[in-house]
Amino acid sequence: MAEKFLSERNLKFLLYEVFDVTSLLEHPYYQGHDRETFDMIFETAMKIGRDIIKPCLEEMDQKPPEFVDGVVKVHPVIKTFLKECGEGGWISATASAELEGLQLPIMIGLIPKFIFGAANYSASVYISLSYGAAHLITSFGTSELISMFVPKIFAGQWQGTMALTEPQAGSSLSDITTSAELTSEGYYKMRGQKIFISAGDHDGVENVVHLVLARIKGAQPGVKGISLFVVPKKRIGENGEMLPNDVTVTGVYHKLGYRGSPITQLSFGENDNCHGYLVGKANKGLPYMFQMMNEARIDVGIGATAIASAAYYAALEYAKERTQGRRLGAKDPTLPQVCIIEHADVKRMLLSQRSIIEGSLSLIIQCAKYADLEIILKGEEKDKFRLLLDLLTPVAKSYPSEMGIISVSQALQCLGGYGYCDEFPLEQHYRDMRIHPIHEGTTGIHGITLLGRNIPYKDGKAFDLYLEEIRGVISTAQNIPALKPYALELKDALHRLEKVTSHLLTIAAEGNFELFLADATLYLELFGIITIGWQWLIQAVCIQSALESERSEAEVNFYRGKMYTFRYFFGYELPKINAISQRLLNSDGLTVEMQDIFFG
Amino acid sequence: MAEKFLSERNLKFLLYEVFDVTSLLEHPYYQGHDRETFDMIFETAMKIGRDIIKPCLEEMDQKPPEFVDGVVKVHPVIKTFLKECGEGGWISATASAELEGLQLPIMIGLIPKFIFGAANYSASVYISLSYGAAHLITSFGTSELISMFVPKIFAGQWQGTMALTEPQAGSSLSDITTSAELTSEGYYKMRGQKIFISAGDHDGVENVVHLVLARIKGAQPGVKGISLFVVPKKRIGENGEMLPNDVTVTGVYHKLGYRGSPITQLSFGENDNCHGYLVGKANKGLPYMFQMMNEARIDVGIGATAIASAAYYAALEYAKERTQGRRLGAKDPTLPQVCIIEHADVKRMLLSQRSIIEGSLSLIIQCAKYADLEIILKGEEKDKFRLLLDLLTPVAKSYPSEMGIISVSQALQCLGGYGYCDEFPLEQHYRDMRIHPIHEGTTGIHGITLLGRNIPYKDGKAFDLYLEEIRGVISTAQNIPALKPYALELKDALHRLEKVTSHLLTIAAEGNFELFLADATLYLELFGIITIGWQWLIQAVCIQSALESERSEAEVNFYRGKMYTFRYFFGYELPKINAISQRLLNSDGLTVEMQDIFFG
Repeated sequence: MAEKFLSERNLKFLLYEVFDVTSLLEHPYYQGHDRETFDMIFETAMKIGRDIIKPCLEEMDQKPPEFVDGVVKVHPVIKTFLKECGEGGWISATASAELEGLQLPIMIGLIPKFIFGAANYSASVYISLSYGAAHLITSFGTSELISMFVPKIFAGQWQGTMALTEPQAGSSLSDITTSAELTSEGYYKMRGQKIFISAGDHDGVENVVHLVLARIKGAQPGVKGISLFVVPKKRIGENGEMLPNDVTVTGVYHKLGYRGSPITQLSFGENDNCHGYLVGKANKGLPYMFQMMNEARIDVGIGATAIASAAYYAALEYAKERTQGRRLGAKDPTLPQVCIIEHADVKRMLLSQRSIIEGSLSLIIQCAKYADLEIILKGEEKDKFRLLLDLLTPVAKSYPSEMGIISVSQALQCLGGYGYCDEFPLEQHYRDMRIHPIHEGTTGIHGITLLGRNIPYKDGKAFDLYLEEIRGVISTAQNIPALKPYALELKDALHRLEKVTSHLLTIAAEGNFELFLADATLYLELFGIITIGWQWLIQAVCIQSALESERSEAEVNFYRGKMYTFRYFFGYELPKINAISQRLLNSDGLTVEMQDIFFG
Repeated sequence: MAEKFLSERNLKFLLYEVFDVTSLLEHPYYQGHDRETFDMIFETAMKIGRDIIKPCLEEMDQKPPEFVDGVVKVHPVIKTFLKECGEGGWISATASAELEGLQLPIMIGLIPKFIFGAANYSASVYISLSYGAAHLITSFGTSELISMFVPKIFAGQWQGTMALTEPQAGSSLSDITTSAELTSEGYYKMRGQKIFISAGDHDGVENVVHLVLARIKGAQPGVKGISLFVVPKKRIGENGEMLPNDVTVTGVYHKLGYRGSPITQLSFGENDNCHGYLVGKANKGLPYMFQMMNEARIDVGIGATAIASAAYYAALEYAKERTQGRRLGAKDPTLPQVCIIEHADVKRMLLSQRSIIEGSLSLIIQCAKYADLEIILKGEEKDKFRLLLDLLTPVAKSYPSEMGIISVSQALQCLGGYGYCDEFPLEQHYRDMRIHPIHEGTTGIHGITLLGRNIPYKDGKAFDLYLEEIRGVISTAQNIPALKPYALELKDALHRLEKVTSHLLTIAAEGNFELFLADATLYLELFGIITIGWQWLIQAVCIQSALESERSEAEVNFYRGKMYTFRYFFGYELPKINAISQRLLNSDGLTVEMQDIFFG
């Protein structure tokens, strides 16, 4: 339906002008690449997104995976897409050359992720999961495990997954009970159940490789007794033959959206014949898994932003074509009607979407840059960027997810009644988007992660670094007259954040953990808005500088649009922090004291 | 799945304790009814809701209306339900005895609407539309029209609809082109197309009676040339036989939710044989139709609140049963897991939903009381309550619609991954709810109605009355020590609203209408939050008084729960007005100046 699903111009603006990805090429690890390679990657990814997976967006929704005779059947495009991505090196794009990867910067690696996500989010996750699983094996597994599983995953022939959640545990990973028993042959016998496993089985690949959290018999209770295993659907026998590995699909979920991707229930070892291979050291599973989880969390942020982008361009296209009503104050009914994009309220909704999408994308690229800097730098600098990346991961996951829902809802609203009908893609985007505040940790979990763990970590080291980063751009922007008022607003916002943080940490220091974390979700929201404000100020410095130089008309329009969107964020979104911080400073314990019997 | 779908206790609290519906019985018009009648109505409506329509909630969603061979087939329960409602007098509940109605107060008439809406929103709209159409005919039609159409509609044998929207006009009613040509026989020949007509055709009734806006040939352009017609699907011939009236269904929309109700495209007079009957005077159609539209708008508020209520009780039931994790600060993994309702963040989400639902319901009953007072009073008092009702209608429509989306989204979130799956009812509620900010006027339209029309109307008379009403409860609450701080907060909020309003009216007075109304949606949001704050303060006065007297344990728990919810609203929701009013006072014309070419 809608042709455009993302702004290439904006993505390039962020990559090249704002975050200067080519500066990474000075470092040996990324040597050999150049802007031309990057542009080619961009073009090819656009082609795959547009020509292969976008045309199947609706069909994959309308004909979701079927679970027939123990087999999960998915849309045939998945096989084509995985093959294409395997052959093109898209799955291993950021893996090292040593592992036959393209060794691209993480910043560039997110180009296909974003493009595929905007073209067809359900399709895009197969690739992301495969890379995450392979990366986990290459980071912590033996060379034997690597050579057994990784090349096939990178080739798109085998699917990778992460298998954490269990029926009785949900978000509470310390209650995992899937068990692993060491055998004399060196492998572990696995037994247990996993739920909500994305791409947990499908007929687009020859094999599925699960990265499974389980408990070795006798391990201590809680998270310190969890280990990580590779558990393939089919294992390789002594003569290289593929043997069934006693991994059973017990069900596929029927879902609101995100229906092109099979979310499965799995059972391991029903016939006591499921082999698992320990990754790294015993009982270190959770810290290992956090690598994949954190990558997956950023991927959720990318996916959420991508869906919001597709919805925005569909709404924009409609708003530019649909005539209805007249400008306010020009009510002569014999005048022709105007396009609805002429109405301030429609422009407001479009600007709101854009401020969310382009702010979120900026944060994601910021995170990718930190990830790249962590890779290429050493010592204290390396630690610095790791700390910043860890601090921002819950924000980069949750802000696009929560605000993406609002963004897509506004896109749908731009179409009025048509937005609610399935002849336009908005209603699907609205359904697809809703998964994001749930999977890879709910927003509530991320609030607790940010406030309860990342902020106090190392005496607030990461938070200090964060403040320092923001103060850097504030001080730059303060010297640009057009931006000074915004810089001062962000400065105020930062003061407020510090005040709230210190207030909450005092409660924590008094040992009242429930009260400390009761409104952690609101803290995450506050933190998110200020973080996106920071990202917009970073962009504004570039925008302002571009507007002051000679440009083509199309370019001037681009930068002027960006400037309006920046002003929108500061005018409409940033003020929200006042209400949230007012609440966070209140700490009257309302939700702690509320009792279940009062709910009726 | 979930048993409970609304709180009978809360509905009775609002009707009897807060708004004292029995006080209406002192007036002759409502004499003859008593509390026992009302309680019986309540019980019977609960029985119909629970036993007839709720069991079909999912099935009506999974098997939406089919358009086969020109006929719209709906779930068979609709026929049963309409028959039951016709025979029980539910459709004509608030109609006068003269019209064979039960002549119940509007406040009591909303009991079945709310109950049916919470049980199965799609089913409930058939009834509401029928009543609205009949009421329009009885208010402005001749006795001939009334006797021809109304008894059948009240009996549930014929369906009533409102047919406004046209393909080229959408929200812009002044651009309606459906035409009506007077014939020598006295009827009009109708010709034109209507879209998005709810219950526009179905096989649960023998006939469908459309209330149609159309333009008599030669009428002036714009809204002053619109007339209102009754256009039945089948007209009554000279010998009382039913003749096809050249009304064709040209399509049924496939929608995100609200799928149990057929939304149709209609074509009138394709064979030049469609008879229409003028209602009231020519060219007065739009003011007449506003009666039905305004009733329908309140009904949308009721429906939105009702869906949110069903979602809330489903989430509450889950939260009380699902164990996961441990209290914060009690991380010993060998301790048993707690129910998730023990987690402050889950309690926060539940309180948020409750504050929205019970605040919205209060506002709706407030509006119903104004409607009743308008009926029974005369002169200035009558005018006063009409003005208040008109002022609040966009708020009673939009606040429950917009905040209901957030409420249902939070209910879904309480269930984590399960909320996203169709084995629980949340995903359906989430889809069903999304229609509300769209139908019966989008939120954008209501913002413009409130700020552009209702506020300036009669020199701000309605707004003054509104302020007076709120000041009344503030001054009561100020004298109750436990409520004084909240009364002062609302007083501040009211000052802020006055300041914003006066700022915007100054812009209007300067003739800058686009700037005046650019952020009308935000003004509506601001107005909505303060209005719901007012409703919560009214409730708090009753709650506090109840808590100070001797009650059973169950009753004390009810009132304590209400008190926490009240405090939640003031602690978490009311502060949001600061951000919104900050923006509204800014008026930098950002969205007016933004140009379409800058959107990219």
